[in-house]
Amino acid sequence: MSAGRDVLALLRAALGDRVDSTPQARHAARADKSGHAASGIPLAVVNATSVSDVQETLRIASATGTPVVTRGAGTGLAGGAIAGSGEISLSVRGMDRILEVRPDDLLAVVEPGILNADLNEALAEHGLWWAPDPASRAISTVGGNIATGAGGLLCAKYGVVRDAVLGVDIVLADGRLLHLGHRTVKGVTGLDLTSLVIGSEGTLGVVVGATLKLRRLVPGEVCTVAATFPGVRAAAEASAAVTASGAQPAIMELMDAASLAAVHALLSLAPPTPGASQLTIQTDGPAAAAEADAIAAVLRASGGTVAVSHDRAEGERLLTIRRSMHPAMETLGTALIEDVSVPRSALPAMFDEIARVEREHGLVIPTVAHAGDGNLHPNFIFHAEPDEAGIVEVPESIWDAADDLFRAALRLGGTLTGEHGVGVLKRRWLADELGADQWELQRQITRVFDPQGILNPGKVFEV
Amino acid sequence: MSAGRDVLALLRAALGDRVDSTPQARHAARADKSGHAASGIPLAVVNATSVSDVQETLRIASATGTPVVTRGAGTGLAGGAIAGSGEISLSVRGMDRILEVRPDDLLAVVEPGILNADLNEALAEHGLWWAPDPASRAISTVGGNIATGAGGLLCAKYGVVRDAVLGVDIVLADGRLLHLGHRTVKGVTGLDLTSLVIGSEGTLGVVVGATLKLRRLVPGEVCTVAATFPGVRAAAEASAAVTASGAQPAIMELMDAASLAAVHALLSLAPPTPGASQLTIQTDGPAAAAEADAIAAVLRASGGTVAVSHDRAEGERLLTIRRSMHPAMETLGTALIEDVSVPRSALPAMFDEIARVEREHGLVIPTVAHAGDGNLHPNFIFHAEPDEAGIVEVPESIWDAADDLFRAALRLGGTLTGEHGVGVLKRRWLADELGADQWELQRQITRVFDPQGILNPGKVFEV
Repeated sequence: MSAGRDVLALLRAALGDRVDSTPQARHAARADKSGHAASGIPLAVVNATSVSDVQETLRIASATGTPVVTRGAGTGLAGGAIAGSGEISLSVRGMDRILEVRPDDLLAVVEPGILNADLNEALAEHGLWWAPDPASRAISTVGGNIATGAGGLLCAKYGVVRDAVLGVDIVLADGRLLHLGHRTVKGVTGLDLTSLVIGSEGTLGVVVGATLKLRRLVPGEVCTVAATFPGVRAAAEASAAVTASGAQPAIMELMDAASLAAVHALLSLAPPTPGASQLTIQTDGPAAAAEADAIAAVLRASGGTVAVSHDRAEGERLLTIRRSMHPAMETLGTALIEDVSVPRSALPAMFDEIARVEREHGLVIPTVAHAGDGNLHPNFIFHAEPDEAGIVEVPESIWDAADDLFRAALRLGGTLTGEHGVGVLKRRWLADELGADQWELQRQITRVFDPQGILNPGKVFEV
Repeated sequence: MSAGRDVLALLRAALGDRVDSTPQARHAARADKSGHAASGIPLAVVNATSVSDVQETLRIASATGTPVVTRGAGTGLAGGAIAGSGEISLSVRGMDRILEVRPDDLLAVVEPGILNADLNEALAEHGLWWAPDPASRAISTVGGNIATGAGGLLCAKYGVVRDAVLGVDIVLADGRLLHLGHRTVKGVTGLDLTSLVIGSEGTLGVVVGATLKLRRLVPGEVCTVAATFPGVRAAAEASAAVTASGAQPAIMELMDAASLAAVHALLSLAPPTPGASQLTIQTDGPAAAAEADAIAAVLRASGGTVAVSHDRAEGERLLTIRRSMHPAMETLGTALIEDVSVPRSALPAMFDEIARVEREHGLVIPTVAHAGDGNLHPNFIFHAEPDEAGIVEVPESIWDAADDLFRAALRLGGTLTGEHGVGVLKRRWLADELGADQWELQRQITRVFDPQGILNPGKVFEV
């Protein structure tokens, strides 16, 4: 307690009113969009507005051995940025400037706190975009996208965050600033620490800047293909057939019957045929129309009822159904949103496993999938009372079912998390996927960056 | 000496005739295609044919504290795989099987010793390819491409090795086998050690397998645009204008006057206009013809004399000129082939710097560039007698000029090596680019993988 007061005094002396120790701010920093919350409340929230604010915070944290949890917009789904008792919540949300846009070099240099959608709005004026498009793009930060190694809807065609970052500036646990990576398309000088930082969830350093690899906006029309199937397995098989046909859709989203029904109800649309599953596919670029027609033929051959639209607005309307998944789930109860990824050919088998888990555990698990890349989001629905702080803990019976699901994904050659990260929610399964030797090696690498272990302790790696 | 004999005896007992200690094999393992050679000759060459051969070799190396230098086809240009006195040269060239090709999941699992071109020949039967295409693709291995983080001609459009590897299997210094990465498009479970291994030049472990991300062969025609310019600066400005125009060529190669003249002489073509520089550009995909026309217009507006060909064979003929650079340089003397990379907008300025270095150091530096991605290969030509072992050492005066060039590239926001790696030849500049703090951090990371420091000691990091 008195140590906590000392830390607070040091932070105040160095950072003045960028230190917020109101109960309101500290309570908010306990939670993210996963529904999970840290036990206890953090010492304070530091609202950094500059690299030197971050350095100052970490110097104090290092000197006093105080844990630091870096935070952007708090939209994480794995509890990776939640701060609890005795910890400093370091917000970089206020560092949101675009420092440089270079259309000639197809790069931008940004601060971490800028929202993905705000960046893309600014880039569009230059005819450019940053391809990573997590479903949260309107509310999540570029720094958070980097920290989690985020994905999104367009990844099979346009890549994930790892493919779209040339360099990062990070502040180490002791306050030193390092510039990792480069401004060039190619560059192999030394180890690729930029890639190591991407997806490291705040355990290696605080990302205070990023050099992003941009693309030109894709010219030409966008075509949308919507297809319904009598069941989810048929839809999954059809999506695998699209990939196997050699087509390269920009987007290929799958919704199972429970998801579709919930969204239709939320949006006051006519209820879908009971049991029906839907694929929503978009093609873009110079061959968009021909690709859409070829995909439609594959879907029809797979038993789908297919409609093709060349109208961009109609395409957006169809995708709105997919994008309404999150609020629709909230109408059903509390959702634990999972994030397994499997090789694309294994999608039908993974849906069989989800059906099995539903059956054996007596649960409803509405599921959407980025079918173009094999990433599924099963939503484990449950009903539980919030505790006195308003937090709903995931019951152990739900974790048992999730455990069953994770192991099924690993058996199919898949991975525990495609794009949300490990955070606190999945750390107990990390060694199952990595193996004990790799787990220990990764742990030791974090210690090179952070010998005292003050950066996001207890996240990713179980303590 | 007696320790060396003990190691040899242990290797022989464990690996039998896979251990080659003939002077011929040991001498060959001293050198690569950089022209540089290790001092002294290695203890032996182990020709591994299986993962367990590699594990056995490393167990013996660990137990006896013997350095191990992993080697593929020996085509490196930075001395990264050369083995000297007291070292084991571990060749994985014999591990060249394709273990799995999955067109439905767009991946292949291969052993490290397979040649890039052989892999792509096999993949073509499935309508697939692995995009990394170093100029050495006919003679270099996939494992070597991964160890150096290789690039090639197609990188601006189709990416580098880092973008095309999902997972690697490595054997650690102590002989343990780890499976890093995944088989899925997305996957963020733990730290991205796969990316860390790519480009690590044998300092972290021995790559014994790789899961590669494949592409479909690009349908449609290939168009080639050839343009000559009165000088190299004009050609460089034109290439930057092509990038800035938003065009996305598959290939954009620049040859300066000295390169062009040497290749024309080698191929017995009519000599080019004195001083003339050339851009050779290819477009592919459904919009290839329209893109070629648009690029031709940009080049004409930049003062080029332009010809467009829609004939694939004529395109290959034009690219043959570019691909003959290496043998053409050998007709001029000995060449130190450099590999700096700069942001694309800085290409003209980098050519100015090369001209300055030529002038101030009294040298001829024929230069080709992957102008689409800003990667230049200046060839420092010199004349020196081979030593008694037939090795031509680079004179210190040439290194002085190279030093001048490296610093110019760094000033322009560039990097020391775009695709060849650091090896021994560039290790003395590594800290200049990384900074002392990052250099030390990288060094410590290698120690996590290899506490004894037996993996490729003296490479990348100066001892």
